[in-house]
Amino acid sequence: MTDYQHLIVARDGDVVRITMNRPARRNSLSEDHLAELLAAFREAGESDATGIVLAGNGPVFSAGHDFGDVSSRDLDGVRRLLELCTELMRTIESVPQVVVARVHALATAAGCQLVASCDLAVAAESAGFALPGGKGGWFCHTPAVPVARAIGRKRLMEMALTGDVVAAHTAAEWGLVNHVVADEELDAAVDALLARATRGSRSSKGYGKQTIYAQLDRPEADAYEIAVEAMAAASQTPAAKEGMAAFLAKRQPVWPD
Amino acid sequence: MTDYQHLIVARDGDVVRITMNRPARRNSLSEDHLAELLAAFREAGESDATGIVLAGNGPVFSAGHDFGDVSSRDLDGVRRLLELCTELMRTIESVPQVVVARVHALATAAGCQLVASCDLAVAAESAGFALPGGKGGWFCHTPAVPVARAIGRKRLMEMALTGDVVAAHTAAEWGLVNHVVADEELDAAVDALLARATRGSRSSKGYGKQTIYAQLDRPEADAYEIAVEAMAAASQTPAAKEGMAAFLAKRQPVWPD
Amino acid sequence: MTDYQHLIVARDGDVVRITMNRPARRNSLSEDHLAELLAAFREAGESDATGIVLAGNGPVFSAGHDFGDVSSRDLDGVRRLLELCTELMRTIESVPQVVVARVHALATAAGCQLVASCDLAVAAESAGFALPGGKGGWFCHTPAVPVARAIGRKRLMEMALTGDVVAAHTAAEWGLVNHVVADEELDAAVDALLARATRGSRSSKGYGKQTIYAQLDRPEADAYEIAVEAMAAASQTPAAKEGMAAFLAKRQPVWPD
Repeated sequence: MTDYQHLIVARDGDVVRITMNRPARRNSLSEDHLAELLAAFREAGESDATGIVLAGNGPVFSAGHDFGDVSSRDLDGVRRLLELCTELMRTIESVPQVVVARVHALATAAGCQLVASCDLAVAAESAGFALPGGKGGWFCHTPAVPVARAIGRKRLMEMALTGDVVAAHTAAEWGLVNHVVADEELDAAVDALLARATRGSRSSKGYGKQTIYAQLDRPEADAYEIAVEAMAAASQTPAAKEGMAAFLAKRQPVWPD
Repeated sequence: MTDYQHLIVARDGDVVRITMNRPARRNSLSEDHLAELLAAFREAGESDATGIVLAGNGPVFSAGHDFGDVSSRDLDGVRRLLELCTELMRTIESVPQVVVARVHALATAAGCQLVASCDLAVAAESAGFALPGGKGGWFCHTPAVPVARAIGRKRLMEMALTGDVVAAHTAAEWGLVNHVVADEELDAAVDALLARATRGSRSSKGYGKQTIYAQLDRPEADAYEIAVEAMAAASQTPAAKEGMAAFLAKRQPVWPD
Repeated sequence: MTDYQHLIVARDGDVVRITMNRPARRNSLSEDHLAELLAAFREAGESDATGIVLAGNGPVFSAGHDFGDVSSRDLDGVRRLLELCTELMRTIESVPQVVVARVHALATAAGCQLVASCDLAVAAESAGFALPGGKGGWFCHTPAVPVARAIGRKRLMEMALTGDVVAAHTAAEWGLVNHVVADEELDAAVDALLARATRGSRSSKGYGKQTIYAQLDRPEADAYEIAVEAMAAASQTPAAKEGMAAFLAKRQPVWPD
């Protein structure tokens, strides 16, 4: 893998582990940090890995945008930064790998957005989630986009308007994360979920994940148009043919890709 | 009612009970089976029944598509099958009757999609729900459409990517089913929910149900345009006029339709 | 504040308290009552208040439309009434203040719609929520619009089709209200939530709230387009600049607006 300044990126079997490693800056998302995350996700996305784990080193998962990097920018400069940030979030959704957020501590603002943008998320009991712009001077407009799509509207409004930290167990009840475990069990829980989520044909799952994001948030008739065409096309792939043949022959499948 | 090969369809008072009856094939949805379900829902939809119960005989509720029927099809053949399947799902939403899924056991893939597509669902404690394409070679693209619209995004991703079975109680917490009851209480719970859901004017409720599906998944302003026009038109019907007159006169209404 | 016939409107520090005060008519939403609510929300929206509390006096929060006012109207008359009602609901969403529903008792039909349309809601344990049109002759088409956007689809269908009352604790689990408290703690809980939700820059929060409603219900790419542009523009405001400067200087911010 490429070397990164702000990240530790390591291949571990079929998994790429991307760890934000700017603990002194609370893994805040400066332009450099965002660009590295985007590059790392693109690189992992083009690899033959089946899963990606996004983690953070230090006292927090990520504190969101780096005010030191934002405060001196003009409108165009901030827009460029937010477009880069959005490209990162949507790349996480578009890579074919299963992406799991490993949230060991606070995830705030764009850091909370990162968690909402990962396909799956596991949190330690001491993790917390917040959209703190709501009690400051710069509202969390873009973080609210994926958070709104993960939790209910009233809960989103409470997070966005109060800016207060939501505890991990509450985040799980609301659907912002999939599971909450004791802090010392976090790695095992991430790996267990990832193992369950990366079985089967890699190509089939990658295409499936992409189709889900394409059909979400659309009127159901439009969503079905997308999904029917995708599923019909998918039926003709070697993976689908092998899966059905193995099922009908009552043997274990051997995935071609 | 028409005779069906794969279904038992019976009129029971104001309710039509449609029971998938291909237990040896785990109520898998072959083209024939889908076509019969579609015909049965259309027939029930045109009847004066107020409710429809969808159930399954045998060890599972429904195992989804029948790989024996899919594996030899080309792209056009699979597309045709999925379009038929989608037409069934959307017909369940469009018939004016209240449709309740009675889920006594596993509902997987398009079987889970059936549950998500019914207006209401009651599950026995031993029921389970899965999108198993996620761990196979043919992803559950179309089942994910209504499941995504019933449960949160992270939960959908866990179901779709892992393919694992979600227990009935979890499905209720996530909003995939309305109620979970002990296995031996399933029929009573289905009938009790149906009784509550079929009171009032049949024509008013049918139109109301259809308006809900029309306004879902749309920006709120668009949804209000649809709902305002529907509700204004509905106010001029005999049922609405009788309901208001009875309320104002403090007498029991007598529904004209 | 203006004097109202059906409302008590009072300024209390930074908060405007709008209390429906037609208890003998169960705070039903006649055209006059709707017009007063709309005027009061507009007046509060143009004020420098930071929060608005919507409450009701008497045995219920609000019973929804006033059949005495609806039953004699023709199609155009009902449409006009529903358009006024919709304008009220969307004005609640569009005012820059944080709007909290204080629900002490039953909120039914358009009364339940009011709760769903407020940004936040706190309910007393003895409150209840219903869309009773489902068991009558005039379906709750428009109330179902914001209720559908607050709770899951299966839960919406149960409310809309049965018309039965959902208890406060269930409404909280479903996401229709944020918190449920003992009846005698309702005012304290409303004020505590409002205090948390109105910290920070007033102008920043108002714009943030409006952006959230603009991006909801849209495909994520469209939502991001709206949110990126809003957040970039917001970064150039005095409030954002003060927030970042204070953060970087480790001092308390002084919000300019």
